[in-house]
Amino acid sequence: MKIICLQENLKTNLNITQNIVGRNLTLPILNNLLLETEGGRLKISSTNLEIGINTWTSGKIEKQGSITCPAKILSSFINSLPNKKIELEVKDNTLFVRCENYKASIKGLPSDDFPLIPKIKEKPIIIFKKGEILKNNLSQVVGSAALSESRPEISGILFKIDKEAIKFVATDSFRLAEKTIYQTNNLITKPISLIIPQRTIQELIRILTEKPDNEVRFILGDSQVLFETNEVQLISRIIDGQYPDYQQIIPKSFETQATLLKDEFVNNIKIASIFSSKINDVKLSIYSGKIDILSQDADLGENKSQIPADVKGKPMEVIFNFRYFLDGLSNISTKNVSLGLNSETSPSVIRPSGEDGFLYVIMPIKT
Amino acid sequence: MKIICLQENLKTNLNITQNIVGRNLTLPILNNLLLETEGGRLKISSTNLEIGINTWTSGKIEKQGSITCPAKILSSFINSLPNKKIELEVKDNTLFVRCENYKASIKGLPSDDFPLIPKIKEKPIIIFKKGEILKNNLSQVVGSAALSESRPEISGILFKIDKEAIKFVATDSFRLAEKTIYQTNNLITKPISLIIPQRTIQELIRILTEKPDNEVRFILGDSQVLFETNEVQLISRIIDGQYPDYQQIIPKSFETQATLLKDEFVNNIKIASIFSSKINDVKLSIYSGKIDILSQDADLGENKSQIPADVKGKPMEVIFNFRYFLDGLSNISTKNVSLGLNSETSPSVIRPSGEDGFLYVIMPIKT
Repeated sequence: MKIICLQENLKTNLNITQNIVGRNLTLPILNNLLLETEGGRLKISSTNLEIGINTWTSGKIEKQGSITCPAKILSSFINSLPNKKIELEVKDNTLFVRCENYKASIKGLPSDDFPLIPKIKEKPIIIFKKGEILKNNLSQVVGSAALSESRPEISGILFKIDKEAIKFVATDSFRLAEKTIYQTNNLITKPISLIIPQRTIQELIRILTEKPDNEVRFILGDSQVLFETNEVQLISRIIDGQYPDYQQIIPKSFETQATLLKDEFVNNIKIASIFSSKINDVKLSIYSGKIDILSQDADLGENKSQIPADVKGKPMEVIFNFRYFLDGLSNISTKNVSLGLNSETSPSVIRPSGEDGFLYVIMPIKT
Repeated sequence: MKIICLQENLKTNLNITQNIVGRNLTLPILNNLLLETEGGRLKISSTNLEIGINTWTSGKIEKQGSITCPAKILSSFINSLPNKKIELEVKDNTLFVRCENYKASIKGLPSDDFPLIPKIKEKPIIIFKKGEILKNNLSQVVGSAALSESRPEISGILFKIDKEAIKFVATDSFRLAEKTIYQTNNLITKPISLIIPQRTIQELIRILTEKPDNEVRFILGDSQVLFETNEVQLISRIIDGQYPDYQQIIPKSFETQATLLKDEFVNNIKIASIFSSKINDVKLSIYSGKIDILSQDADLGENKSQIPADVKGKPMEVIFNFRYFLDGLSNISTKNVSLGLNSETSPSVIRPSGEDGFLYVIMPIKT
């Protein structure tokens, strides 16, 4: 193999692929990236056996071939080089890199031993026009999935797709985030639901941060999904299991509703968190025109602050875990936020004010 | 006690004092700050029994008094408040804080139990005109002191003061940094040397970052030193012991001298470090007009780069620990750096090119 390409292009694709590569002692080739020439471009691939990533870099191919070599050292080295032409050449399972006054040789392993990344040949069922928008939508829910795998079905993000809309949903049973995109050009014949691992969505977000302008095609295989742009493919397993029937817990009407400035709300809850006890409790006391925010710890002391709010319905006192509450607010980008409550023990809803599509359900702490 | 002061002033002084406060389970009052009225100002003090800090904040004193309360919670709370007037009031060992719509009560401990911070009444022996310059000078050496306390005398920074100059010196026996300030108004009768703990100098640097424009007075007590501005005092123990006679290891002449661009040198050594082996070795090969930088690891591969340099004297090959080498270069702010060597086993010197006062001695790795 012998290729000449630009440092900047190579760097981006190494950064995209190398992130899923861990330190695998039992199967050392998993620490490596696969580099191979394909159709006039350099294909770089990585896999952790759950997720596979392929990228393609333009360049001048002088000789076809392939190699695998350690991801961290190759990407660290290429990242440090100036944005000039880089020559990559393979001889005797070693990758020789040359760029201006810099030379390196990196010991590799034969590409035949690299695990196969599944190929999905189906047609896309959804085309997202702009990577950045998909990224922003997924970012609003991804952090709400369960971190533990003890209930695998909620350790992933639910994709609920029908003819009119796509919903992304995540919950860890203490809170739930749902984002709806109204998109009518979905190429499906019947509604489908599937659960995609949180790590896959985190990687997709990272890739779309590097490639914000590209169209993203979503393709469904037998037991795998594929997210694809012109230069990157992300292939992932699907989580087996039945997602909880979450829609029944979302309240449709509210006894009390409050609308207030989001940034001020965030700041006051952060201040209250300084004084909250070990269970992270912060109490909201909602009444005409105002919300009082209270916290106290028997050893430390207590804190109270007040925010003006447009309150409808009856007064209410309710206690939340401030971390979950702040997580919800942090996914809202509108100036105002609206809060809907029914009782001190039933699920409450946080929404961006004047914007449709996102909602965050949070369970109060029962006292 | 009842005081009204501005959030901004209070915040700065809380940040200065709270940093040395740890989590002390055997003596809980050491987790606290001492707040007391003194001469029309609010005095805030902290101590870790090795270092003591006093600060003074202007304000309107409505009632004299004092309290101690937990450092982290008080500074977190004050830091989060808007820059408005803050009222501090003490009742029943509790500190009540009010600011606009925010209220808090913080449980304290009586101020009588707070450890005494020594008072030093002597006159200053040195006056540094500008805190920022002192900070920059100390920053160049502070990182080179020994981290372990197995040899206490090199775990601190040497202050070597005579009529004409002040030298700051630090070493961990692998490398040594020396900064000389030529200042002839030192109020001493005979040369003195003393060793100040690294942590004290780190705290001083932090304080001077907050107060860059102030004059700093250096005062010597019986077994303590005091660094003082108009609003802050830092009191520290002195380390007992004899500092090594380091000047004998600084070479006075060189077989080989090279001058080259500092940023390029740093970048090439960082690149070489990617391929260096477990002992962090990077080899410099110095010859007419150039330096080659080489590194290799039996498992990973190898790397070579080249930098143009103005070289005088005979060619030389020498191996350094790249971490120590980069530490030295990072304390140099001139465009060019000069390197002086005598053999592959004797101490080498790194200096800023065209600037006097700083030198960094580094021992090569022997092969």
